[in-house]
Order: sequence, then C-alpha cells, then structure tokens
Amino acid sequence: MREALRLARKGLGRTSPNPAVGAVIVRRDRVIAKGYHRRAGDKHAEVDAIDKVKGGLQPDDILYVTLEPCHHYGRTPPCTEAIIRAGFRNVVVGMRDPNKSVTGGGCEFLARKGINVRTGVLESDCRKLNESYIKHATTGRPFVIAKSALTLDGFTATSTGHSRWITNERSRQFVHRMRDGTDCVMVGAGTVLKDDPRLTTRLKNQRGRDPLRVVVDTDLRTPRNARVLHVSSPAKTVIAVGEQVSAERRRSFERKNVATICCPTKGGHIDLNGLMEILGKQGITSIMVEGGATLMGALIREELVDKFYIFKAPILLGGGDGTPMARGTGAKRIDQCLKLREIGVRRFGDDVLITGYPEY
Amino acid sequence: MREALRLARKGLGRTSPNPAVGAVIVRRDRVIAKGYHRRAGDKHAEVDAIDKVKGGLQPDDILYVTLEPCHHYGRTPPCTEAIIRAGFRNVVVGMRDPNKSVTGGGCEFLARKGINVRTGVLESDCRKLNESYIKHATTGRPFVIAKSALTLDGFTATSTGHSRWITNERSRQFVHRMRDGTDCVMVGAGTVLKDDPRLTTRLKNQRGRDPLRVVVDTDLRTPRNARVLHVSSPAKTVIAVGEQVSAERRRSFERKNVATICCPTKGGHIDLNGLMEILGKQGITSIMVEGGATLMGALIREELVDKFYIFKAPILLGGGDGTPMARGTGAKRIDQCLKLREIGVRRFGDDVLITGYPEY
Repeated sequence: MREALRLARKGLGRTSPNPAVGAVIVRRDRVIAKGYHRRAGDKHAEVDAIDKVKGGLQPDDILYVTLEPCHHYGRTPPCTEAIIRAGFRNVVVGMRDPNKSVTGGGCEFLARKGINVRTGVLESDCRKLNESYIKHATTGRPFVIAKSALTLDGFTATSTGHSRWITNERSRQFVHRMRDGTDCVMVGAGTVLKDDPRLTTRLKNQRGRDPLRVVVDTDLRTPRNARVLHVSSPAKTVIAVGEQVSAERRRSFERKNVATICCPTKGGHIDLNGLMEILGKQGITSIMVEGGATLMGALIREELVDKFYIFKAPILLGGGDGTPMARGTGAKRIDQCLKLREIGVRRFGDDVLITGYPEY
Repeated sequence: MREALRLARKGLGRTSPNPAVGAVIVRRDRVIAKGYHRRAGDKHAEVDAIDKVKGGLQPDDILYVTLEPCHHYGRTPPCTEAIIRAGFRNVVVGMRDPNKSVTGGGCEFLARKGINVRTGVLESDCRKLNESYIKHATTGRPFVIAKSALTLDGFTATSTGHSRWITNERSRQFVHRMRDGTDCVMVGAGTVLKDDPRLTTRLKNQRGRDPLRVVVDTDLRTPRNARVLHVSSPAKTVIAVGEQVSAERRRSFERKNVATICCPTKGGHIDLNGLMEILGKQGITSIMVEGGATLMGALIREELVDKFYIFKAPILLGGGDGTPMARGTGAKRIDQCLKLREIGVRRFGDDVLITGYPEY
C-alpha cells in the first residue's frame, strides 16, 4: 500500500477533479505491476496496473489500491468490472470513496461477486493524500491552503512593503512544487498592486503545471499591465470582482486567457464563502492562497482555511512596523487563538516550514 | 572529549564567573575517572578527576579536559601543577582559555615540562559550551540571550495584553532549565506591570538555581507589590533605574533581597550598553532577556543580543493587532533584516523552538 501511495502522489494536482490513486499487484509477496491515475480522462490506477501484468494474472495475485474502485460509468468504464474480469480473488483498499455517487458501490459490488475485499489499510495516509478531493467531494468546495512566508518575528514585508525575498531559493522551489500540485493559486488585489507576481509554476529541470490564477479584487483595482494578466501560460487568470463592478468594465479586462467572475459581496468585500462555492462548482478541488495580509485575515476569520503552510526565514525585522501575516482584528485572549493540529516541521536550509490543520 | 563535554554541562550556570569544565582520564581506551567543575571556588575539573583515580595514575594515562588547564593562583591552586604532580605524559585540551590572565600559560607550561599537549579537539563544541564565559572573558560583558514565545503569526500577546500561555508546559519547563543555567534573567518594567512574573526557576523534581533578576525600569514604575520584589529566593532582584530617579526613591525600594542600580540614560531610556558594562563588572557572564517588546526592540537595534531562542506555538492570533516580539522601527528592506546563523530547530510537543546567532 505504501508503494501504491507513492505512485498515487505522482498524479497529484493533475487528476483533478478526480482523486490521485495508485495501485500495485502483488504475487507471492512481490510487486509484479504498478499503476496510477495520470490525469482526469486517463486510465484509472487499477486498470493501468492490470494492463502492465505480463503473461496474465494468476488467481492468488492481490490488488492493492489506495481508493475504493469506481463502480460507475464516467469518462472511463467502471474499474470494478475490470477487476472482476481480471479474476482477482483478493483486493485491498486504502479508503472508501467519499464521493456520494460512488461510495459503497465498488467494495460492495466486488464482495457480492465473491471477492475478498479488505478496506482501511493505511487509511489515514490515503485520506491525507486526497484531502483536497475528499473536501470537494463531500462539501462541493475546494480545500484551501494558506501559504505564508514570514520573518522569525512574524512579518511578510517591511514597513515600506518590501518582501523579496524573505525565504530562500529552496523554500521558493518548494512553493513552486506546491503550485504544481494545486488546482488554483489565489492572491488579493493588494498583492498584485504591490508585488506584481506571475503566479506560474517555475520548476527547475522539471515540467511544471500552472494552476488557475485567481485575483480577489472587489473593486477591480488590478492594473491592466499586471503581469498576472499577460503571462504565457496554458492556465487561465480569473479576476473575482464584486457585483458592483459594471459588466462593461469587467468585459474590458477579458481576453483569451483572462476571465472575470462576478461575486456576491458582504460588508463591501467579496463574500469569500460565495467565491469558494463558485470555484468548487467549476471543479476546483484545491486552492493555495499566497496572500496578502487582508485576504489572509478574512479567510482565517471566515474559517475557510483548511491547512496552513508557514515558512519561517532566519531573519528578524527587529521592529513592530512590518506587514503581519493576517490583517485585522485578532483573538482577544490566547485561548481564543486558532489552534493548529498535526503540526509538521520541515527544514529547507535555514528556513523552517511549519504546517498544520486549524481546529475551528 | 565528548564525555568530558557532557560532564562539563552539569556545571553550566553554577560555575560563573568561571567556565564550565569537564575532564576524563583514559587508560587503554577506557575512561577510569571523570570530573567536572561544580561551582566557583570548588575543585577544578582536572583535579576532581585526578582525585577519583583509584590505585594511582599510570604514566600512559591520558587526561582529556574541555578547557586549557589554569596556570595561576585563584581561589584554587593552578591545575597545571596538579597535572605535573600526577605524572601525566599526555594531555588533550578542547580549547585554549580566552581569559587574558590565563591564555597560553597553561598549555605552554605543560609543554615546557615535557608533556605532550594536543589542543583544539572538538573545539567548536567546547567553545559553544562556554560561549557566555568566552564573551565575558574577552569583552567584560555578559552573553545576552533573547528568549521570546510567539504565536505562529508572530505575536507575544493579544491586543488586550493577554499572553498566558502561548507555549506549552514542556516549552515552559525548558525555559526554567534555561533560567537554571543562566546568571541573570532580565525583563522590562512593562512586563512587570503587565504580567507580574516571579522570574524564579521552577523545575519539576529537580533543584533549580534562581538567577539574578534584573528589571530594566528607567522611571522606576515597578509597583511596590510586584511579585518579583517579594519572591522567596536565594537570588537578588535588581531594579536598574535611570540616573534621574532620586536616590531617596531608589532607596525606598531596597531591602534585604532587592537592590537598585543607577544607570546612565540615552534619549530618555537606560543606556543598555552601559547597563551591560555594569552587570559584566559584577561578574554576570550570561543574561536571558524574556521581554517585553520595547526592551527587545532596543536590544536588537543596539546589537546587544548574542543568541535568540524563539518559541513558536501552534496557534494563530489571526489578526495584526497583537504585541510583536520587538517594538519600534524595523528594517526597511528585507536584505537589511537581522540575519541569524547556525539555526537550530527543536520540538517540544507541537511547539517549535528556533535558535540562532545574529550576524551584526
């Protein structure tokens, strides 16, 4: 199952809105075939592995798959039928499929056909692998990652707005790998005005996949010459604007690669819950929010962040006048602060990445 | 030498203004005696080890000692003579003594007496062990540790001043171990007013040593009923006040366990350089500064901090209105931020401690 998980990870960020799935076939304690789901529309992991077995399957071969095999006709025929046709007598499943159109179907069907099905093997790893898919499949909304790069004393920029670069090259490459594995990257209009980022995936010696770029821009302040509107990329840039922005003005920004979406507002700002709903409906399963402080503060207070990635660089601003990670009114008491659980710590040279899941 | 270093650590914080030193005697690759310096005035490590050898030394026994043996009459006779009397032919030394009244003396003297002296073994570890002693011996000033406990987004308190507790029990116990190993703990008057700390060493199942407590209090704002003035402790509390505070008012605070020192001021605040000079002259080799934000900011800008201990708790304030680690004007550009080197990362449960040395 560990090997199946490893294979599944290769597809992460490319299979959306499908889950990333890996499969291996084991004969007498040896792996004889491996497969994974490469991208939506492509072969599922089980079929990919079955197709690779040389000289035909034997009845005692065991199929390990990270996610319950599908049992419906989607873009590909159901994997359950391929499994039965292949003649497996034993199937080991990492986790049940949380998608309501599938759940239960696959495992029960296989069991009815006399196949020995074991589920829940390395389940928590399998769930973590597809945390975005699970969130989207169960709530219709994307899994939201908040990424921030801070000085050790907690600032994302100096008092003059200067912020390049807080983290080192290795951390920044990791962020590009994160972009590569995420459906969508999101920033506030302030960040576009201040940093003019491209929000593309720039990996060394590796083909990266650009995520959809979303600028949250209630009043359409994004400059017409912003780089995010002019990057050469297979992915689109979307400006999310408030409903008060005229359709004409919106349309004047739209081009081949640039779209706008009109969002409900709340208290003069885009209703972020509404925006997540819209993006979820468009099949976006995961979003990485990269700032700025205003958007981050709003997302935290709306309890919309599912996971935090906080990079700490080995530098100190040495004052209190920088830009914080999140603007706005914070908790009044320490016990009212947002607690993170499952804390992960990772070093990139002298930078330290701390990750965790909020407990709302 | 590793064993000698381990032994030396036992004395840390108790030997001041002497260094912490450990020694082992090795016979045919086996340690036959161990010693360390317990506290100023007590036996030195070499003599402690020599005294423990049962049945007399043999000429091929090797003495390992973390610091160059002393060669002067202080509170104890010179160790060099004890070494010669014991008949060692081989001595291995971790590092030379940086103290000008000793340097070179010990090793050269032993060499002149025909003893084989090897120096610089695990030198960087030996230097790190006694970084406070080295700073004090070479500059006359204490080694200053800045300790801070921050939320992941970088705040030491909420907008209401609430700060208990940001870190968990394990981190706080570690801070008590740090106090136990430090000559002096220092806070600003604001922290006394806000948190009313005791600044004593409270270790579980272990006898702790209270450090000298110093309150930096330019205008003598410390309340008369502040706990730091009334703790039952073998160590003193010192209030450092500005020169404008009348002697009469100062004296009204002094008691058996409470003293005041009058400090030069600069721009309306105590001149921290002057204060360090005064404390160094009193034999204080190490200071742990535990806040608040105003004192921390001033120390950083005066380039007085030698090492940072920054605890990150797994919580987010989620706003920008908390108390920062350091108040005041920070760097204007990221490349002007204070860089830390030799970054250390350590976990205490879900708290993460990041340590480093500033590069001024």
